Amino acid sequence: MAASITSGVTAALAALDFTPTLAVLVPTRDEATAWYVRSIERAARKVGIACRVVQLDDPTPAEVAARLDALSADPSVHGVICQTPLPAGVTLDEVGAHIDPRKDVDGANPASLGRLAAGLPTYPPATAAAVLEVLRHERVPLEGAHAVVVGRSTVVGKPAALLLLEENATVTVCHSRTADLAAVTSSADVLVVAVGRPGFVGAEHVKPGAFVVDVGTNPTPDGSLVGDVDHAAVAPVAGRLTPVPGGVGPVTTAMLLRHTANAAQVIAADG
Amino acid sequence: MAASITSGVTAALAALDFTPTLAVLVPTRDEATAWYVRSIERAARKVGIACRVVQLDDPTPAEVAARLDALSADPSVHGVICQTPLPAGVTLDEVGAHIDPRKDVDGANPASLGRLAAGLPTYPPATAAAVLEVLRHERVPLEGAHAVVVGRSTVVGKPAALLLLEENATVTVCHSRTADLAAVTSSADVLVVAVGRPGFVGAEHVKPGAFVVDVGTNPTPDGSLVGDVDHAAVAPVAGRLTPVPGGVGPVTTAMLLRHTANAAQVIAADG
Repeated sequence: MAASITSGVTAALAALDFTPTLAVLVPTRDEATAWYVRSIERAARKVGIACRVVQLDDPTPAEVAARLDALSADPSVHGVICQTPLPAGVTLDEVGAHIDPRKDVDGANPASLGRLAAGLPTYPPATAAAVLEVLRHERVPLEGAHAVVVGRSTVVGKPAALLLLEENATVTVCHSRTADLAAVTSSADVLVVAVGRPGFVGAEHVKPGAFVVDVGTNPTPDGSLVGDVDHAAVAPVAGRLTPVPGGVGPVTTAMLLRHTANAAQVIAADG
Repeated sequence: MAASITSGVTAALAALDFTPTLAVLVPTRDEATAWYVRSIERAARKVGIACRVVQLDDPTPAEVAARLDALSADPSVHGVICQTPLPAGVTLDEVGAHIDPRKDVDGANPASLGRLAAGLPTYPPATAAAVLEVLRHERVPLEGAHAVVVGRSTVVGKPAALLLLEENATVTVCHSRTADLAAVTSSADVLVVAVGRPGFVGAEHVKPGAFVVDVGTNPTPDGSLVGDVDHAAVAPVAGRLTPVPGGVGPVTTAMLLRHTANAAQVIAADG
């Protein structure tokens, strides 16, 4: 599925007479981040997008902001993302505001989130966009369906909820304070889980036949990844369950590249 | 209750050595709007806020935008709102983007909505803020409660849902495409109705004992207002039901004034 998205990106890029550039700001030294950035670089190279990785060492908040301002202003850059984890004292919302919305291909600027909430054209966070892309690709009926999102982060839960609402689903957002989680989630036709806790969702949380999207990517001691869903327990109940690794993750990277290709087209068209 | 909010506003204003000004752009001739604007002027005068009403006749979208830009840039103005209905070809999101977020006391700029979604300080739309103020004033438990919002507009439904989420409620948003509305709404501990259809919500939609907030203000042939809730039918079922007229409406005006007082304080402090 990620492959079908990236082949669409390649086709879109064929119409451009330049190579789009995705700038990736990495403001901390972190092994998992480095691994993810390399995977973005590899995927970008395959479709014909250049990656410019900018590694900072122990930057101040002002330095992160200044670098994002500079990349936003650089006419040779078409997409700008800032990797987490962020240095102490820096929040994604604060730095996100320094990414030009036209280049905000991972929807980190609160202005982009606001446009999403207002139903205006924008780049949603790539992970949230990937959740919707998986559902569309699998032709999951969303109109009038009950979609339950577990997790209310600014990068996944809330934007996924807004996108599901845009698709005319009835949307419920659950979180750590939800009183009887299983009672709510087990009424979901579509269940999106993004809490960052390995195996958090079990069979008792899932309506038989539901489509379950596991957004979790929790590292295991052996260097692999597990999702937020207990796959062994849920697979027999769910109608369909996206795998981890290999589900939303690669589609997220593909969406990042699609957004970058779109941004390059828009910027080129605007001169 | 509106009185208790406005007395707080008066107290806050006592600390200022100038009279804050709320600019109200009215881009169409509409009787209901004119009535509402007069009620804002009266309420503002009472607390010591000046209202500058700017009536435009049949403006182009560019004229509306230019006027909002000018009011945003005017140092003697502390809050800027734009009344609906808007002229043909103009959307609130478009014109809202021309209101400086520091003066956006009715949360019309998508950037303000994005800050709300990101959990950053901002002015939510006054109606959505009023819904939360009513719930707080009545000490309705929200943490872990199931709050259902019927209606997904950018000015009420979505921002109210985001504010309820911020209060740790489990939040469901329903709308015209929701499959079995009564099944969803009758599980709500808190039910917020903002659909703009007189008497739309009946007893079958309400869980016994639920707190029901009726945001509807639908004009009746005799010149009065009715809500979106069938009050005769729902009152015996609901634990509490806000009246129309006299419920969310006056509190909305009070919130607009509170936001304007806050904006004046922030702008004064920033020099």
